Amino acid sequence: MKLKLHYLDRSRAMRVTWLLEHIGLPYELIPHKRQENMHAPEALKDIHPLGKAPLLEIDGKVITESVAMVEWIIANHAPQLAPATDSPEYADYLQWLQFSESTAMIPLVLKFIAAREPTPPQNTLAYADSEIEKVYDYVNRQLANKRYIMGDKLTGADFALAFSLIFMKMVYQGKFTHIDRYLADLNQLPSWQKAQQIEQQVLQGK
Amino acid sequence: MKLKLHYLDRSRAMRVTWLLEHIGLPYELIPHKRQENMHAPEALKDIHPLGKAPLLEIDGKVITESVAMVEWIIANHAPQLAPATDSPEYADYLQWLQFSESTAMIPLVLKFIAAREPTPPQNTLAYADSEIEKVYDYVNRQLANKRYIMGDKLTGADFALAFSLIFMKMVYQGKFTHIDRYLADLNQLPSWQKAQQIEQQVLQGK
Repeated sequence: MKLKLHYLDRSRAMRVTWLLEHIGLPYELIPHKRQENMHAPEALKDIHPLGKAPLLEIDGKVITESVAMVEWIIANHAPQLAPATDSPEYADYLQWLQFSESTAMIPLVLKFIAAREPTPPQNTLAYADSEIEKVYDYVNRQLANKRYIMGDKLTGADFALAFSLIFMKMVYQGKFTHIDRYLADLNQLPSWQKAQQIEQQVLQGK
Repeated sequence: MKLKLHYLDRSRAMRVTWLLEHIGLPYELIPHKRQENMHAPEALKDIHPLGKAPLLEIDGKVITESVAMVEWIIANHAPQLAPATDSPEYADYLQWLQFSESTAMIPLVLKFIAAREPTPPQNTLAYADSEIEKVYDYVNRQLANKRYIMGDKLTGADFALAFSLIFMKMVYQGKFTHIDRYLADLNQLPSWQKAQQIEQQVLQGK
């Protein structure tokens, strides 16, 4: 099986390199640089009509959605990073995978886009702020007594969630101490550090 | 195993009733009515800190995220509605599950919220419109030669995607003929019709 990862700097692609480096699965990385206006390069549209990244080619088939990539890689190549399908924890696992790009991301994108308006739309920003506070307070409480989001063991749910938490810290000045501790712990993992190196290399055009 | 579904009118809960009715899995439905300001009732916060619905109780454990519920129910109780984990189609299946609440939903929520501002934020609306056009044109083309989103067979990807397409039609006046045909076909399914009846019953407080 041949995996090609189309990597874009400052994108959800980091989820996928972190996981692939963590499990040591061979893959080809194809770097793409954002344009000066921060848009993805037009060339990505030749690979997939949505024109965004990451894209994962699996034996030539192209899929989008970084969390789907994480779930697929784990299901097929690293089952130790997921609870068994018939275990009580499996429902939590699927919940966190979905949560990371829906409930966790929607209010952040809302704030990120609306805050750039010349006249900030007050209702939209107020709604985004109150949702962000509620959602990340919930995550923060979940992490209060757990090393990783599912407990003592790193799972695919962490590979999905961590990016959302980093994005949250970029757009929202919340003080969520358990989230800070969680991200600091992840920062100690060699695979996380390798993923940061890859990001820097793509950013610097190496 | 005992399933309790906390159902909220005009919400993503319809995905879950449609699936449960389709496979004939027993469950208890607990109706919750939106308040006059369209917010979910405060009582939901007693069941889950995020205070939203649907919520699924599985032997007393509560999870959020309607698409996670769909995936969990299928994995454990209706495997015929998903491709095998090691099949080439499995990556597409996971992609559509994620897509339905991330790529497909983010620009719709952006438009839905921003359009209610007294002074509409022009950049935000322009971004939302261009994303919606791109994303649903992609879905429309995917449906051009297929009965369901994965091909001839109904899968969990349809249970996830259909709600997003209905929401799209509520907030965006696009003319996507293949999406219209797809939704009209789904409308013929007895399980879909049953889900609509449940929605009406909850709306009318029955």
